[in-house]
Amino acid sequence: MLDAQTTADRLTLDDMREAHERIRPHINRTPVMRSDYLDELTGAQLFFKCENFQEAGAFKVRGACNAVFGLSDEMAEKGVCTHSSGNHALSLSYAAGRRGIPCNVVMPRTAPQAKKDAVRRFGGTITECEPSTSSREATFAEVQARTGGEFVHPYNDPRVIAGQATCSAELLEQTGGVDAVIAPIGGGGMVSGTCLTVSNLAPQTAIYAAEPEQADDAYRSFKAGHIIADDAPKTVADGLLVPLKENTWHFVSKNVTDIFTASEQEIVDAMKLTWKYLRVVMEPSSAVPLATILKNPEVFKGKRVGVIITGGNVDLDKLPWIKG
Amino acid sequence: MLDAQTTADRLTLDDMREAHERIRPHINRTPVMRSDYLDELTGAQLFFKCENFQEAGAFKVRGACNAVFGLSDEMAEKGVCTHSSGNHALSLSYAAGRRGIPCNVVMPRTAPQAKKDAVRRFGGTITECEPSTSSREATFAEVQARTGGEFVHPYNDPRVIAGQATCSAELLEQTGGVDAVIAPIGGGGMVSGTCLTVSNLAPQTAIYAAEPEQADDAYRSFKAGHIIADDAPKTVADGLLVPLKENTWHFVSKNVTDIFTASEQEIVDAMKLTWKYLRVVMEPSSAVPLATILKNPEVFKGKRVGVIITGGNVDLDKLPWIKG
Repeated sequence: MLDAQTTADRLTLDDMREAHERIRPHINRTPVMRSDYLDELTGAQLFFKCENFQEAGAFKVRGACNAVFGLSDEMAEKGVCTHSSGNHALSLSYAAGRRGIPCNVVMPRTAPQAKKDAVRRFGGTITECEPSTSSREATFAEVQARTGGEFVHPYNDPRVIAGQATCSAELLEQTGGVDAVIAPIGGGGMVSGTCLTVSNLAPQTAIYAAEPEQADDAYRSFKAGHIIADDAPKTVADGLLVPLKENTWHFVSKNVTDIFTASEQEIVDAMKLTWKYLRVVMEPSSAVPLATILKNPEVFKGKRVGVIITGGNVDLDKLPWIKG
Repeated sequence: MLDAQTTADRLTLDDMREAHERIRPHINRTPVMRSDYLDELTGAQLFFKCENFQEAGAFKVRGACNAVFGLSDEMAEKGVCTHSSGNHALSLSYAAGRRGIPCNVVMPRTAPQAKKDAVRRFGGTITECEPSTSSREATFAEVQARTGGEFVHPYNDPRVIAGQATCSAELLEQTGGVDAVIAPIGGGGMVSGTCLTVSNLAPQTAIYAAEPEQADDAYRSFKAGHIIADDAPKTVADGLLVPLKENTWHFVSKNVTDIFTASEQEIVDAMKLTWKYLRVVMEPSSAVPLATILKNPEVFKGKRVGVIITGGNVDLDKLPWIKG
């Protein structure tokens, strides 16, 4: 049985499978979508795993549900708490709401309104902080001390990683296998889950991560061989602001083939392309993989590539290609 | 074998089934999507059939492919032609492109840029007209005389109606049946196809149509008992500007339970709601059904309701809830 202290090296495929059984009643088996036009444009065969179609609008509901529904009744009593740039906050609120326990979240005041609204809609309570790692950690310490809830870290928690790992298990089943998988990287929760599943079930499949140039700490960490953390990066990809931690670094350093970066304009262009041709509402963070595929055609050409669309919680009044 | 002159009363389920076999290689079996939030909001169980996820972004690819791939080689030689406010034009271009024959379309100059771009991307040739029935018909007569292509009417063609009928056959299979189906109505092609399939396969299912108040000629026709046509209605729902014709009137007058209307603001609100909670990019016309469900809760409460999302070709730079 996993708890918050289990270290990443002890996670196994069985943990992913247990998570999948546990969360199945609470998540959607999201569809894999295709676009002939985007295939032509990239020269690859792209399989978009649409986690934006989760009820809470993000893959993070997998890890959050695994953590919340894995708690003993005694542990669950005081509820759960976390800090998050948005999607983990609302996903944890969603999971806690379904279990009927309280959820307290610390979010940067700059988080998209759509994400704050969703937290409240699912019954979570928000405490705002400044958009920096230091402010987030200080504010969270106060909230956790006050509420006594179980801390579910947005990505450095083995229960969360095991939950996120269920996404690529579905992707492999739905596609019959791919040559490569690519996902956005912030703290590394989705990428770590992908590593856990794919490196075991399909070891021949390359695992790539995609990151904004303006928040490229995972890229620099990967090249340097140790974790490098920025305090307050700024990018349109609001879901990718946080640094790697030891549990995600374990997977990133061990299983990731390469990390690619994209500029702000490339991210916005890829986002608009996906809205236009795949016709899905997804957030800027989810566009980083396509942006890097377009930028590195030689890596992906002729390949079957799974692309994780991580979330779809966007402020529809403030789209990044429309000047306000 | 259907041709352009077959009258609507002679269409059967076998025509729909033949169409389904014919078009299967060229269309997507689009997913049916759910949203707990929209269910709560309406008190109904909504099953959204997402035809915006066709490669061409609209259900119209079903009827267009049935017409184009049903042509003899001799008939196909001079290509096809049509007039359309957008989605039939680009769908016919898509179908003609896949068969490798020419396609000439007449479109109002006010049609969304996204739709004009798609026609050209699929290899169609556009001749523009003024946004009125009279201008469209005059311009089209000239284009048809010049090219000699086979005319595939956007909706008053039995081959097209049989193609559109395949959509609700899939919906019934995917949902295991519903209490009601609702689709937007312009010329009535989708609604007629729905009538053909649903009145035969699931006669207990109610069939509703949804129309903009500002282009409510089908509503007024339905209440009056004969076709009423407006020359140049104006609404944000750019796909619903055309009047009923005899083949669609046949089905609308015989099989439709009721027609509901919604205001421009109600349509835009429903569009934004769907983008936000279902996270699909769909066009204003596709939002009219949800707008009327929200307006007539007593009709839909507690019911299983199939909602046809007819298309997703939108100008992303000009969203109706963002003042430009």
